[in-house]
Amino acid sequence: MTRTVDLNCDVGEGFGACTLANDAALLEFATSANIACGFHAGDPGTMRGTVRLAIQKGVSVGAHPGLPDLAGFGRRRMEVSPQEVYEMVLYQVGALQAIARAEGTPVRHVKPHGALYNMAAEDPDLAGAIANAVACADITLVLVGLSGSALVKAGEACGLRTASEVFADRGYLANGALAPRGTPGAIISDPARAAERAEQMVQSGRVRSVEGTEVTVWADTICIHGDSPHALEMAQSVRQQLESAGVIVQSWTSP
Amino acid sequence: MTRTVDLNCDVGEGFGACTLANDAALLEFATSANIACGFHAGDPGTMRGTVRLAIQKGVSVGAHPGLPDLAGFGRRRMEVSPQEVYEMVLYQVGALQAIARAEGTPVRHVKPHGALYNMAAEDPDLAGAIANAVACADITLVLVGLSGSALVKAGEACGLRTASEVFADRGYLANGALAPRGTPGAIISDPARAAERAEQMVQSGRVRSVEGTEVTVWADTICIHGDSPHALEMAQSVRQQLESAGVIVQSWTSP
Amino acid sequence: MTRTVDLNCDVGEGFGACTLANDAALLEFATSANIACGFHAGDPGTMRGTVRLAIQKGVSVGAHPGLPDLAGFGRRRMEVSPQEVYEMVLYQVGALQAIARAEGTPVRHVKPHGALYNMAAEDPDLAGAIANAVACADITLVLVGLSGSALVKAGEACGLRTASEVFADRGYLANGALAPRGTPGAIISDPARAAERAEQMVQSGRVRSVEGTEVTVWADTICIHGDSPHALEMAQSVRQQLESAGVIVQSWTSP
Amino acid sequence: MTRTVDLNCDVGEGFGACTLANDAALLEFATSANIACGFHAGDPGTMRGTVRLAIQKGVSVGAHPGLPDLAGFGRRRMEVSPQEVYEMVLYQVGALQAIARAEGTPVRHVKPHGALYNMAAEDPDLAGAIANAVACADITLVLVGLSGSALVKAGEACGLRTASEVFADRGYLANGALAPRGTPGAIISDPARAAERAEQMVQSGRVRSVEGTEVTVWADTICIHGDSPHALEMAQSVRQQLESAGVIVQSWTSP
Repeated sequence: MTRTVDLNCDVGEGFGACTLANDAALLEFATSANIACGFHAGDPGTMRGTVRLAIQKGVSVGAHPGLPDLAGFGRRRMEVSPQEVYEMVLYQVGALQAIARAEGTPVRHVKPHGALYNMAAEDPDLAGAIANAVACADITLVLVGLSGSALVKAGEACGLRTASEVFADRGYLANGALAPRGTPGAIISDPARAAERAEQMVQSGRVRSVEGTEVTVWADTICIHGDSPHALEMAQSVRQQLESAGVIVQSWTSP
Repeated sequence: MTRTVDLNCDVGEGFGACTLANDAALLEFATSANIACGFHAGDPGTMRGTVRLAIQKGVSVGAHPGLPDLAGFGRRRMEVSPQEVYEMVLYQVGALQAIARAEGTPVRHVKPHGALYNMAAEDPDLAGAIANAVACADITLVLVGLSGSALVKAGEACGLRTASEVFADRGYLANGALAPRGTPGAIISDPARAAERAEQMVQSGRVRSVEGTEVTVWADTICIHGDSPHALEMAQSVRQQLESAGVIVQSWTSP
Repeated sequence: MTRTVDLNCDVGEGFGACTLANDAALLEFATSANIACGFHAGDPGTMRGTVRLAIQKGVSVGAHPGLPDLAGFGRRRMEVSPQEVYEMVLYQVGALQAIARAEGTPVRHVKPHGALYNMAAEDPDLAGAIANAVACADITLVLVGLSGSALVKAGEACGLRTASEVFADRGYLANGALAPRGTPGAIISDPARAAERAEQMVQSGRVRSVEGTEVTVWADTICIHGDSPHALEMAQSVRQQLESAGVIVQSWTSP
Repeated sequence: MTRTVDLNCDVGEGFGACTLANDAALLEFATSANIACGFHAGDPGTMRGTVRLAIQKGVSVGAHPGLPDLAGFGRRRMEVSPQEVYEMVLYQVGALQAIARAEGTPVRHVKPHGALYNMAAEDPDLAGAIANAVACADITLVLVGLSGSALVKAGEACGLRTASEVFADRGYLANGALAPRGTPGAIISDPARAAERAEQMVQSGRVRSVEGTEVTVWADTICIHGDSPHALEMAQSVRQQLESAGVIVQSWTSP
């Protein structure tokens, strides 16, 4: 049976005069785009420009809401309440919805950013707050979360369509969580090896953890990082390997 | 013939732990609420709380987008391009739309704040950018602008329903602009006199300028300021005088 | 032997058009002022105005650096590294030093705000980072921290003069930490009772914990909260009781 | 007689995860560094890292304060009062002073950024406010402004040492102002031509305006832009030409 998988990447993560990644090049390989919404990165002009870029590249537009921490790029955990998370996700998704609508495309998915993503993977209350905000914003949105995470479960409980995400360039712990950056095996920097892992996760639903055990994963979408030195090479390698193996690479939100 | 007029006030203009005005008391007198959207004031939690307050008081919910200048409370003019204005208005309106929708009410109108309001009264390009953003966000939104201003004209040109605003507590110049704060007659602080002016503007469509000439105004809505020392007294006085005179005080956006 | 104690309060915690507390009234009772520095609250204009107010009231000027979280008022813990904390404290203290110097007064003490204060009470690494930043900014600065906390220890280890702080209106746990808000006994709202506790802590160096045990405290300074409904009454009550008991109420940093 | 000139460049203009220019490479050619201070760009961590980089490269450390407009990169004029400008410059310079002092170097000069620089070139009140803030922060600071501008005059009136700046890669109007970007001749993109102009301005004190007239300039320092595509090539070309011509390229603030 032919498998289908989406490749998602974080884009529009500049602010004002600053840009973070080569979005135009990345979107040649990705099939869905997570657009920063102004809290960890992104401003209205960058958001609109990135929506246009995604449309031009034929890539699905999604929201990438983060914690209100521009200086920390949304990577620092904050002690936020479920209510605060609900409100900040609604705000950010709504802002992108208006911008995208004006450009003629709907927002099709939501993937939380950085620390918010990680907190929502573990904490059912925060996960529920995010899922609830997404459902309130538009019940047809796809909620993207770490495969096996509390966020995916919360999305399902809210009646949302969810997409389980896997990481080709990150090591996994035996419990399915990502190995923390800085621990041995946490980062896979060889594009060929990342591509192999991507194919394996998609085809077999399994990946070997840094401890050596097998972890079960479900790969609806694979994260393509844009902020590493070999980002483009990695993206190309993953996409080529999947296509060579006969996997259909397309957005889960394509018409 | 019976005249109808709306009383609008700016609310939710705090940020984080700070609040600016007694919103709950103000909304007893107003019929429509302009809610700050995070750029000159307002954060997601304040926005949601203010939407709830407006619903509870039976007041129409509107967006009050401003320039990105929290420290200056959006009162300092900035050299922003029409494109930047278009993008920042879309962003802010969209954010409030999502929050309001989740609370069960649509956003019914948009009134720019402070320097953005004043710039849009004079500059057709900025006015057009705002009107275009509002039309893209939702063509059924009412655009609120200074009576006789470029903003009202731009709204009409976009096919939007517009509401012409008058100020009971501000002096007018002969050309219909507001007399700058600090000039003689710019501020009317006596509630009784403001109330008389309000009634006169609604009933006759005229007001005497600080130069002594008559200015033609159209009063769809009267601004109730919340940040003056006598704000509540002023609001009450204006409302009572209008109702005593048989004017129907209600939101133009009521069902 | 006559005891001396300082009364400190947080001031300048507005932003732009917003203000939080009645600073002028509070500073009638306090002897040292912790001025917000722009991260959790405060902007350059508010900082300068508050420095002037403190000078006018004869109150010592101190810095009140916080986490970069305006929307959360610096009350939400963030996963910040010691290096980040060091940098953000230096930045904020330096900003206030320049403003205060221009007004003719030195900054005399530093008291971290909110979550940063609480984190520094427990975490020796963050406490060390703060103490190090303060020592680098000016080795004659007094570092204010919770009595018995890691922050006071870190300040001493850096060669800084420290001031141990106690809270008259907060309950203590048996281990000397403050009882978390929301737990029984965490908040003392009766001004008379707070005043008694203040005197007792100053005179005896002891306070009864919410568990009923005695806690040893050292009271160089007592915190006067400005953001409670009875803030002024509380401040007045504490000050009067101390003075009636013959305690000298003055800044530890007075000449 | 041998002429001496400084080459200054704007650095540290990232924010959080974003960076704008290749600062390390630029500082190979520059002799003084203008470090962004958090308002138009720059955060405490970026500021500290940039101070360290400047020390390592043997380049003088200066402050580069801007308008509070991160999204607009400080390039949009704002209607700020002289008092507000005074306060925001003090705040930013003070913040960098503390960080630089902790790294073992003083801040030696101040050059306003973007719209603030341009406004201060023309408006004596804003220029005076900046000069006053700089003098209050440290009377030994060098104030950098456009050659012939109100800012240089204001600095002299305050008793500050000033440095007149010229632009090798920008066209001049007959009145000594820079030709606005977008007008013919406003941008010189050929490194060789820019280098020739640099030498000519240093040696002769004259430059040909876009109108063809001669403009008198005083070149204490030449701006090296970092955000153009050929920034490094331009910097190298200018420096080499000056050195080949026997001009001593060094910071005016070297010991």
